[in-house]
Amino acid sequence: MSNHPPLGFTFAGVPCGLKKTGAADFALIASDRPCAAAAVFTRNKFAAAPVIYDRALVTENPAGLRAVAINSGCANACTGDAGQADAATMAAEVEVALGLPARSCAVMSTGVIGVRLDMSKIAAGVRLAAPQLAAEGWDAAARAIMTTDTRPKVAFREVAPPGREAGGVRLFGMAKGAGMIHPNMATMLSTIVADAAIEPAALAAILREAVEVSFNSVSVDGDTSTNDTVLVLANGASGRKLEAGSPEISTFASALTSLCIDLAQQIARDGEGATKFITVRVEGAASDADARSAAKAVANSPLVKTAFYGGDANWGRILAAVGYSGAEVDPTRADLWIASGSDEGGNGRKGEKGGENEGQNAPMLPLSHSPTPASALQLVRSGQPLAYSEEAASAIFAGKEIVVEVKLGLGDGQATIWTCDLSHEYVDINGHYRT
Amino acid sequence: MSNHPPLGFTFAGVPCGLKKTGAADFALIASDRPCAAAAVFTRNKFAAAPVIYDRALVTENPAGLRAVAINSGCANACTGDAGQADAATMAAEVEVALGLPARSCAVMSTGVIGVRLDMSKIAAGVRLAAPQLAAEGWDAAARAIMTTDTRPKVAFREVAPPGREAGGVRLFGMAKGAGMIHPNMATMLSTIVADAAIEPAALAAILREAVEVSFNSVSVDGDTSTNDTVLVLANGASGRKLEAGSPEISTFASALTSLCIDLAQQIARDGEGATKFITVRVEGAASDADARSAAKAVANSPLVKTAFYGGDANWGRILAAVGYSGAEVDPTRADLWIASGSDEGGNGRKGEKGGENEGQNAPMLPLSHSPTPASALQLVRSGQPLAYSEEAASAIFAGKEIVVEVKLGLGDGQATIWTCDLSHEYVDINGHYRT
Repeated sequence: MSNHPPLGFTFAGVPCGLKKTGAADFALIASDRPCAAAAVFTRNKFAAAPVIYDRALVTENPAGLRAVAINSGCANACTGDAGQADAATMAAEVEVALGLPARSCAVMSTGVIGVRLDMSKIAAGVRLAAPQLAAEGWDAAARAIMTTDTRPKVAFREVAPPGREAGGVRLFGMAKGAGMIHPNMATMLSTIVADAAIEPAALAAILREAVEVSFNSVSVDGDTSTNDTVLVLANGASGRKLEAGSPEISTFASALTSLCIDLAQQIARDGEGATKFITVRVEGAASDADARSAAKAVANSPLVKTAFYGGDANWGRILAAVGYSGAEVDPTRADLWIASGSDEGGNGRKGEKGGENEGQNAPMLPLSHSPTPASALQLVRSGQPLAYSEEAASAIFAGKEIVVEVKLGLGDGQATIWTCDLSHEYVDINGHYRT
Repeated sequence: MSNHPPLGFTFAGVPCGLKKTGAADFALIASDRPCAAAAVFTRNKFAAAPVIYDRALVTENPAGLRAVAINSGCANACTGDAGQADAATMAAEVEVALGLPARSCAVMSTGVIGVRLDMSKIAAGVRLAAPQLAAEGWDAAARAIMTTDTRPKVAFREVAPPGREAGGVRLFGMAKGAGMIHPNMATMLSTIVADAAIEPAALAAILREAVEVSFNSVSVDGDTSTNDTVLVLANGASGRKLEAGSPEISTFASALTSLCIDLAQQIARDGEGATKFITVRVEGAASDADARSAAKAVANSPLVKTAFYGGDANWGRILAAVGYSGAEVDPTRADLWIASGSDEGGNGRKGEKGGENEGQNAPMLPLSHSPTPASALQLVRSGQPLAYSEEAASAIFAGKEIVVEVKLGLGDGQATIWTCDLSHEYVDINGHYRT
């Protein structure tokens, strides 16, 4: 796979002084022509100023965006009217510096809540970043949006024209997000760019579906941080136009979904203080919504997550979480399995695994379809604990990648949620985040 | 206040070998005459065997209970049909040992999930405990039900007859429960005994109301552990009969509620690894249910709880939790206050503070009614952050007892939830609970 970003986009990442460490904290992405735009935002009632700004912007100008500016170190959330004005100023300064039309730049912020943006530093960031914009600047941009992330998170995809190997549409995405104990609580930002031409409405529909099985399966959902944003821009620089309903647009949708899953999993793997990557799979639920509730309850349970951290095969906590999730449960039908490995395509029902670069994320254990593989260990059958080998269970829990699979035996509802364990380091990071 | 338990009840606590440490792990409570019984149980779909047993027992024999047997060290949960049989055997062994009628003993279990009860140890516990039953055995019984609790939790109340100082009805309660990060996830058990005569239906109604503003405000709710149980027994040994609708029964209800709040707060203060006691108060919500959702979201947020642990005044996380709680919020109306202290009677709307021994739990800060006291510090007004003293805020967050008050400005819905912080020790305790 190549690491060539889509045509017509340039990137920069610079330090502007918002982070006390002096690390890069201001990213800029620009397109040489107007882009179709679509976005998914937090549903938090205290939506941050940049979220409010972008929501209006994408609605108002869905085919004319030219740039995105992102700062880390300050979330510009819970900052009232002044914060709203700051977000607008940040966008306007980029538009002026790059000679773009008004209302063509989106903004994102991540960092401490409740503190005003230092606008002199933002202005410095714009001044520094604008002349550095370059196609190869994607890595610097991805690093500049990190907060407690230990590494940048990027993904590339390419969709070849029918019957050819190359010369198609390229996608690039970058993301940040690392607070994972309640996956839905730490800010998750992602910007994805593509050089296809596509109608904004079609792009929005594709993004919604992709986010549901990717970012919403680790990080967002009904409850989200104040700043969560996934923005996709498509500028048409490849010369390829994707018509609604065409096979080409389906292939593009698959590639976008695969890219989003890739980024979402990178977020879970880099959870604050994470030492393990955990896939929670629920099958046989009365509905997909029930499966999702049950999987999220397990994935969010501090008791389950600390047990994973300690390598303790305390599986009763898993069933207890399913039991209070609100999902329909018949205890006499519930099965519980554990296995080593991960389950990359677990939410995949709709063929989104057709992307060109699927191989790089091949699942280590194909748990997404029954039957559960022979290498998995069954702990509970029909609600009755089995006389399993404690040694075998401990070996699985001691590993770095763990799959938990609950089969409820009630219907065909299914869901997969990715998460990580809860460690001492998580407490360190979050006990003194501002200091 | 005297520590005399109610007349006609005896108690014992002994070690029977379920705990690896050799600590006491089997408690017995007996009444010399039949008791009216009422109980509130977990709503977890994987209800443990003793919960299933007691639920049927209290329904079948609400006026004839004679004893309660409680073991720690093993929850007898997720143990299937065999576990059900074990719970029934445990009850029957007590009934035989004490010469009681069949189906007159309730059972409770707490400890590891998914492991069978060792019935030879239970039998040993019954043999040891039965001859030790005594009025003064309450402390031993309370110690025998501890798991990760660092101290036993007991409370006494006495309701004097009208116009007199003593000679009334006595109440005694004991509880265990310490897993507090999601308050609703660790097993909470409580047994309360009283020497009043009261109809089971009236007792059930009183208990339901008392649990809502006490145990359900720290520990239980829609989502609960597999074993949560609050059981109250009233044996009439005082000779005082409480008629439905009488002033006496209201006074008794107030005393029972006060006792439950006392025990519930002891649980929060002894949360696993807890270093701070936190009162989350929400006022001005569109409804009480909304206030409760918002307060619980704050109290359950690991980001908020680790910030408290670190003494970091990261108040933006508090508003963010309110924002994703599902409660109706208008960001332009939200106020946020913090204060040192606690708020004992915060859920009290219905005069349940009339109990005889109220004084012992006097609130350190009477935050339950507006206006917020002058010693509190306002951080946000109408959604706008104030230029508060960071030093003053840090001093409050550095304290051992913290009150967080959110005023939503939408209606008169209110709720109080008690919780604790999330510390390194929590991770230690729960990472290796079984080992």
